[in-house]
Amino acid sequence: MAKNFADNLLEAIAKKRSPVCVGIDPVYARLPAEIIEDPEMNDEADSETALDAVREYCRQIIRIVAPYVPAVKLNIAFFERYYHEGIETYYELIEEAANVNLIVIGDVKRGDIGSTAEMYARSALGDPDFADLDRLVAPDAVTVNGYLGLDGVQPFIDVAREQGKGVFVLVRTTNPSAAEVQDAALADGRTVYELLGQKVEEWAVGEGLVGESGYSSVGAVVGAADRDQAIKLRAMMPHCLFLVPGWGVQGASAENVAACFKSDGTGALVSASRSVIYAYDQEIAGMKYLEMYPSEWAKCVEQACKDFVADVAKVAPSPG
Amino acid sequence: MAKNFADNLLEAIAKKRSPVCVGIDPVYARLPAEIIEDPEMNDEADSETALDAVREYCRQIIRIVAPYVPAVKLNIAFFERYYHEGIETYYELIEEAANVNLIVIGDVKRGDIGSTAEMYARSALGDPDFADLDRLVAPDAVTVNGYLGLDGVQPFIDVAREQGKGVFVLVRTTNPSAAEVQDAALADGRTVYELLGQKVEEWAVGEGLVGESGYSSVGAVVGAADRDQAIKLRAMMPHCLFLVPGWGVQGASAENVAACFKSDGTGALVSASRSVIYAYDQEIAGMKYLEMYPSEWAKCVEQACKDFVADVAKVAPSPG
Repeated sequence: MAKNFADNLLEAIAKKRSPVCVGIDPVYARLPAEIIEDPEMNDEADSETALDAVREYCRQIIRIVAPYVPAVKLNIAFFERYYHEGIETYYELIEEAANVNLIVIGDVKRGDIGSTAEMYARSALGDPDFADLDRLVAPDAVTVNGYLGLDGVQPFIDVAREQGKGVFVLVRTTNPSAAEVQDAALADGRTVYELLGQKVEEWAVGEGLVGESGYSSVGAVVGAADRDQAIKLRAMMPHCLFLVPGWGVQGASAENVAACFKSDGTGALVSASRSVIYAYDQEIAGMKYLEMYPSEWAKCVEQACKDFVADVAKVAPSPG
Repeated sequence: MAKNFADNLLEAIAKKRSPVCVGIDPVYARLPAEIIEDPEMNDEADSETALDAVREYCRQIIRIVAPYVPAVKLNIAFFERYYHEGIETYYELIEEAANVNLIVIGDVKRGDIGSTAEMYARSALGDPDFADLDRLVAPDAVTVNGYLGLDGVQPFIDVAREQGKGVFVLVRTTNPSAAEVQDAALADGRTVYELLGQKVEEWAVGEGLVGESGYSSVGAVVGAADRDQAIKLRAMMPHCLFLVPGWGVQGASAENVAACFKSDGTGALVSASRSVIYAYDQEIAGMKYLEMYPSEWAKCVEQACKDFVADVAKVAPSPG
């Protein structure tokens, strides 16, 4: 059988020797002064000027991190914010990332019932019926919300199977109030997130989904806010790659992240967003990088990316 | 205190004497031949031509239903399918609907963690930081996914409070596999959807959210596939308006829908999509309308809309 998304991702991870992903969540007000033409401009600026700056910044981020990481994750919310023009930029940046051989995850968290999910799957993962839209490069994988059960996810799985793409279903998120719903105790002793985890593992072993690597095109978003949760889910979902957000900012500690990997060093893709892309911003990264490279924002980001790779390497079991 | 979204919606419902909403989910292949210039064209058509047809069709649908219903619901997935150009059309149509005094619900089902949800809230409900984007008319309310707990929903609630807008949180959906997750039994005897329902009621009574009508800017999406579920949720969520999808196609029977209303005739907005907007399509509506108005698609839609209003009137308790 042909390689699936998981095979491709694991190959890219092996090539770069690092199971990490840089999350690109651009906020205009945080961009480096060198990119914002008028440093007096803030979020009150003209949206077109702001979007131009965002586009240029993201292009540079992609070029800076490409030598070090196998994948980037673009969060569509930060582009939707500029309405349709932002969406155009989102697809342009996916193409830029694909051109430097990065695997691209579209963090879209879509989820709806069957026929609507089919529409979302087409724009989110590609495979449009319209031949002229083929020119647009869609992400290699997307995140989806599983609260609606299998038929909200199935259309994404179908496109993933046909097109060699991937789907990461939200299982346990890292936000403070995630526990309100996801940690609720079920009558059978499980939690809601464990129920979701078992469902996702069931979906993941569906026909034509498990690749040469033993991993499925269907993975899971698993925050590493709690080590026990990560251990449980890793054991419960042997066929699923985990997309692990929150490194650096959302409190995913090193030992929690380690629990998302199998002992062979595979099984997780650790994502960091703000701690890398805003490494030059004192509010987010402190003075660490600014002292090393005063007023060289790109150098700060590059160094933070290298540090991120090195830090995860200390934590993730060595592959092979 | 100023009127909130619920007050405005109830006023519009009173004016039109009907608690219904037409869902606009345009699929190119289903458009009337009169709108598709080349009737041989199908989903393989050029996307621009298709989107032009979709736009024209939706404009006409809006004009046809405006005299009879207080609200329309635009499902963004059916526009995202045309990438950024589709999103532009989505906002154009919101403006068209607002211009004929329809309340517009954006069916976007977004949901993400705090800072990202804030971005989504800005594009989904308006209130952009960029003054030049104010020209865009955003929906009066949107649907959101509550799987991430309060902090995925809070930014939407904040925008709703400040801007007199509304939020409908998914509680129980009508798709066949919804039960997999939403009906799971909790250790405390509730189901997952009841847990969500109670959370949403808690969020709904937050400061500055409950209007003159006693209803909050925060409502819920409650499918009426099961009467007992509807009864339970109606009792549990006195401050929440229910957006009730699925009339006609998704199996929401009349008596189930009735259970979504309070005895005073308020409390629910019943939505029908395909059974109205494709009333001229034999596959969906049979021959009923085609026999009345052969080859007059707009007349079919108008009649189906009037029938929908009359049918819900039989079911919903008479207001006050």
